[in-house]
Amino acid sequence: MSGTPGRARARSLGVVVGALPPGPLNAITDVDGVLVGHTTIDDGADLHTGVTAVVPRQLVTGRWELPAAVHTANGYGKLVGSTQVDELGVIESPVVLTATLSAFLAADAVLTYLMRRRPDALSFNPLVGETNDGFLSDIRRRPITERHVLDALEGASGGLPAEGCVGAGTGTTALGFKAGIGTASRRQVVGGLPVTVGALVQANFGGVLTVLGTPMPVEDLLPGVVRAEPPGNSCMIVVATDAPLDSRRLGRLARRAVFAMGRVGASYSHGSGDYAIAFSTAPPERPLLPDAVLDPLFAAVMDVVEEALLDSVFTATTTTGVHGRTSHAFPYDRITRT
Amino acid sequence: MSGTPGRARARSLGVVVGALPPGPLNAITDVDGVLVGHTTIDDGADLHTGVTAVVPRQLVTGRWELPAAVHTANGYGKLVGSTQVDELGVIESPVVLTATLSAFLAADAVLTYLMRRRPDALSFNPLVGETNDGFLSDIRRRPITERHVLDALEGASGGLPAEGCVGAGTGTTALGFKAGIGTASRRQVVGGLPVTVGALVQANFGGVLTVLGTPMPVEDLLPGVVRAEPPGNSCMIVVATDAPLDSRRLGRLARRAVFAMGRVGASYSHGSGDYAIAFSTAPPERPLLPDAVLDPLFAAVMDVVEEALLDSVFTATTTTGVHGRTSHAFPYDRITRT
Amino acid sequence: MSGTPGRARARSLGVVVGALPPGPLNAITDVDGVLVGHTTIDDGADLHTGVTAVVPRQLVTGRWELPAAVHTANGYGKLVGSTQVDELGVIESPVVLTATLSAFLAADAVLTYLMRRRPDALSFNPLVGETNDGFLSDIRRRPITERHVLDALEGASGGLPAEGCVGAGTGTTALGFKAGIGTASRRQVVGGLPVTVGALVQANFGGVLTVLGTPMPVEDLLPGVVRAEPPGNSCMIVVATDAPLDSRRLGRLARRAVFAMGRVGASYSHGSGDYAIAFSTAPPERPLLPDAVLDPLFAAVMDVVEEALLDSVFTATTTTGVHGRTSHAFPYDRITRT
Amino acid sequence: MSGTPGRARARSLGVVVGALPPGPLNAITDVDGVLVGHTTIDDGADLHTGVTAVVPRQLVTGRWELPAAVHTANGYGKLVGSTQVDELGVIESPVVLTATLSAFLAADAVLTYLMRRRPDALSFNPLVGETNDGFLSDIRRRPITERHVLDALEGASGGLPAEGCVGAGTGTTALGFKAGIGTASRRQVVGGLPVTVGALVQANFGGVLTVLGTPMPVEDLLPGVVRAEPPGNSCMIVVATDAPLDSRRLGRLARRAVFAMGRVGASYSHGSGDYAIAFSTAPPERPLLPDAVLDPLFAAVMDVVEEALLDSVFTATTTTGVHGRTSHAFPYDRITRT
Repeated sequence: MSGTPGRARARSLGVVVGALPPGPLNAITDVDGVLVGHTTIDDGADLHTGVTAVVPRQLVTGRWELPAAVHTANGYGKLVGSTQVDELGVIESPVVLTATLSAFLAADAVLTYLMRRRPDALSFNPLVGETNDGFLSDIRRRPITERHVLDALEGASGGLPAEGCVGAGTGTTALGFKAGIGTASRRQVVGGLPVTVGALVQANFGGVLTVLGTPMPVEDLLPGVVRAEPPGNSCMIVVATDAPLDSRRLGRLARRAVFAMGRVGASYSHGSGDYAIAFSTAPPERPLLPDAVLDPLFAAVMDVVEEALLDSVFTATTTTGVHGRTSHAFPYDRITRT
Repeated sequence: MSGTPGRARARSLGVVVGALPPGPLNAITDVDGVLVGHTTIDDGADLHTGVTAVVPRQLVTGRWELPAAVHTANGYGKLVGSTQVDELGVIESPVVLTATLSAFLAADAVLTYLMRRRPDALSFNPLVGETNDGFLSDIRRRPITERHVLDALEGASGGLPAEGCVGAGTGTTALGFKAGIGTASRRQVVGGLPVTVGALVQANFGGVLTVLGTPMPVEDLLPGVVRAEPPGNSCMIVVATDAPLDSRRLGRLARRAVFAMGRVGASYSHGSGDYAIAFSTAPPERPLLPDAVLDPLFAAVMDVVEEALLDSVFTATTTTGVHGRTSHAFPYDRITRT
Repeated sequence: MSGTPGRARARSLGVVVGALPPGPLNAITDVDGVLVGHTTIDDGADLHTGVTAVVPRQLVTGRWELPAAVHTANGYGKLVGSTQVDELGVIESPVVLTATLSAFLAADAVLTYLMRRRPDALSFNPLVGETNDGFLSDIRRRPITERHVLDALEGASGGLPAEGCVGAGTGTTALGFKAGIGTASRRQVVGGLPVTVGALVQANFGGVLTVLGTPMPVEDLLPGVVRAEPPGNSCMIVVATDAPLDSRRLGRLARRAVFAMGRVGASYSHGSGDYAIAFSTAPPERPLLPDAVLDPLFAAVMDVVEEALLDSVFTATTTTGVHGRTSHAFPYDRITRT
Repeated sequence: MSGTPGRARARSLGVVVGALPPGPLNAITDVDGVLVGHTTIDDGADLHTGVTAVVPRQLVTGRWELPAAVHTANGYGKLVGSTQVDELGVIESPVVLTATLSAFLAADAVLTYLMRRRPDALSFNPLVGETNDGFLSDIRRRPITERHVLDALEGASGGLPAEGCVGAGTGTTALGFKAGIGTASRRQVVGGLPVTVGALVQANFGGVLTVLGTPMPVEDLLPGVVRAEPPGNSCMIVVATDAPLDSRRLGRLARRAVFAMGRVGASYSHGSGDYAIAFSTAPPERPLLPDAVLDPLFAAVMDVVEEALLDSVFTATTTTGVHGRTSHAFPYDRITRT
């Protein structure tokens, strides 16, 4: 199975979000062409950080761009490359997630990756998001190197990506618990077309974990544990689909991705830079789906983001990091006992 | 007490949203200077519509504008006046809510109202929002006249506003049930300053009613009832506060107002034009609250909107309208039995 | 032939903007399907106002919407319908221009027009822009009626539209001189496709008239004349094209439409609500032009807007209005003598 | 005098933009606290690039942020840090300009600079803009190092900054001629307050050079010279003022900064990423200037940007770079002869 030994995905615990069926992997990699790679940096002491890359294979095999949109729900964060996506409605780069103070070096590394693939081009728009893992990791050391980023990009593959304390999620905390990376997918027929929607999240934001409507405050589940993490931090959400959509429509999906954070209890606080990036891998000759048929797709986006966020918590393991701070794993016997 | 005979507000049924205390009325009118007026048009047959006005007294007594922001979460709707609020960061008009096809005549009526108060001015920016009550009301008749709008504006008063099937909520349906107008407020100390936040909503959107995390689908609660209303429609949210905030900060509140729709089960569908308008009645000489202290205010906004939305459903009564269509009241014995 | 007796279009005076050839009429009506109608209200005394309608025939003959975008360069104005165009990327209404305090009644009249054409529809998005003609016209009388608006819409036709003191330009003043409505067009081959771009403007903004780079201050051309009009007011620009473009690309055109105001000397002042609306009448099955070939189209947009603005001044006649105020015609012997 | 031996600023040649008086240096450094630093990389062969830093001293002496806004007129470019400026309305970093493929490494270097000044902080928002100097410089070599960026930042000083082929302007071309960095300032009394507005530009965009309304095509001025540079590229504009303005008002200034590009003949082409950043160094206790008095400030912004752009061309010298390409200096005997 997946990522984290001894941890379970939400669905395997009977926590099923919505009625739509997931794809075979229940992961963003169910979307045609989407690969995921992680580089994890965990020295067992002060460093708990990393890089996660979402790589649409189409970008490196013949097409140089894919329709895309970014949505900035709370801009207190960094999303390198956003203005060009807004203007041209496309991504020309994989989406790379990492730690706040490593985002720019990571963008420079994405340049290296892209330049190798297009030896004649003089301009590229790396797309790099971040959240701040400084609660558990010595973020000021900026430990991430170009090699780490290239490893995540070049090692990206299909199959079920590792979740939890891995890649850009190695040091993140969400909703009171240790969190990390999560992913999910849904399949359905929209406008007569079978389509898949997937999401991958880097969860690092405040609020009270809410599982299918039931609040599960860390203070109740882990008596004695005191929340120490900063109230804000952030959430980066990547949505991929094979539905034929242009940038405007993908922007509508991206907005709903952020709305889904509320379902798991996000407080949408001042310090939480909340961003969503949505792209489509559909072949360009496909006619676009009209707006009027998008509701099922909107519902699927909300479901995959909700489930990916739950997975990001359920699959993460207790981590002690810099300054001896600990972020605790969600005790999901609480779920299984129910 | 309140609005609708035989109906109860959420809080009176023990449905308490969040831990913050409400203001004395638990209504937007708890915010200094804020008045509410309704004109209800209900002929017992094909017309179920009306006008609701939120009137900051400050606008008609000495100040001609208040800091404000609008947030368009789904622009499939009409918000007359939005671009000028974006540009100048102020409202110079009460906020008027009504039915889609009456929004423009209502804006013209707001002109009449404003011109009387400023006999020398040559420009005004009426702010009028709408949702589509055409499921229950014969919207194409455009029954709302200038007189109806002036009545709502001139009749605006403090005290607990009527909720449910009143004013602009007379003909609306939300989350599977008859809905309408709802309101709520919260008080707290933010940045050392006692502040009040209030909301008033015109609820007319799809999804599955969710009360404090528990989904309550109309199909389960009212067996045999089939949802007939269109999936979309819309939601207009008005947020008022006496906290000293400028347009940028109010825009951050407005965004969170829309996030709160998710808590009650909004599906954020294609056809749902979801808008929030936030304004501050604080005296202009007050120093602005810094962004870093806004989290409690953000939490309060989400709570008042959630509670106002619940109230909009709980206080509404079963209504049969045009084409014999019926929208059913929420059976809150379901809540009280628990 | 054209509009105003005794007045001449820029091009007929040898003022040729750019190198691209105009269409046969050098007017927005050169764009396939675009009709223009005016209703002029001029009582020779206090009323100098009116309505101008740009009607894409496609909207009333089988297609209910056209790809479109609005750009708000200075939102100190009213553009009824803008949020829905932003969201859905289409217009479903002709574009109507009028006076500030009549914009909402005009929007209500557009509803009447649209409802007649779609007897079953329950929602419409009228698109109405305005500038403030209160310097010459008794704007507070709100003299425009539904009939005036319907006349402009129903009377819209092909052929060269009247320019200058007509329709929504009857009472406007720009760049120190009496102005009004202006229009122009260009033809070229873009991406292998012959395309036409046209513009129609309602000019009512401050600055120093600049003709092909030469400033022509009213104070120099008409010694003794003192500018009396308010510094701001506004400019509404309508851009039409038969090039196959979606909303995002049309938004890029709309931005350049506003940039062109600078060429004729616009001061882009605080009070000038400057808006551009761009739409495409191309058949929907045409493949979209890629962004990389749009430069010639951008150049054409800037040229047609510049020339339309010059025409709006050149074709207008001296007008005396409310409070005995006079706005003087541009003395273009100044041009012809050169 | 300053900058470039043998080259002259526009004003010294009698090219005077507007009627407002410049500050003592006619440079952005006339604005209280604003320093400028350049690092120039010019190997006489394939490398013509560099870094320019605009450093508000207030950011490094006691205040950690200044009110600011960014305006993206054409987002086909990179502006690292823009979303956080949009959200919070402040900059917390100097503004650094450089070459496209070095922007991310430069942002990482800005981190180094900021981290040294705030040893406890875990989050920073570097603000880095770029244009593409790949026509003259071997941009794919990414020759800019952290040291280069730190040198520009740490070497920033008052006094007249060098203009032309220096820093981030070393390899840029605009309006058909060699261009580079330009700067200008204006002083006036606004709302009763003496204020200074300054601009610094990195000019690298297409169009036909227009000097005070007169087009001066390179093809006419330098017969035999064929334009070889790409049509687009970009323009980065930095506007500084000591007028007390918040982010919203500064955003209005930033928009007008881009409008001023049209005055010198910008074609606003597809490939030209055109951005403006505006910030205020006014002490935070100063009351904000009301919007209604901003017109003189808007006019000043347009004048300083126009003059800075002219200077960026007038002070640059003929440069031969990678692939033997040459960009020619503007022959301003053409001006002086007039």
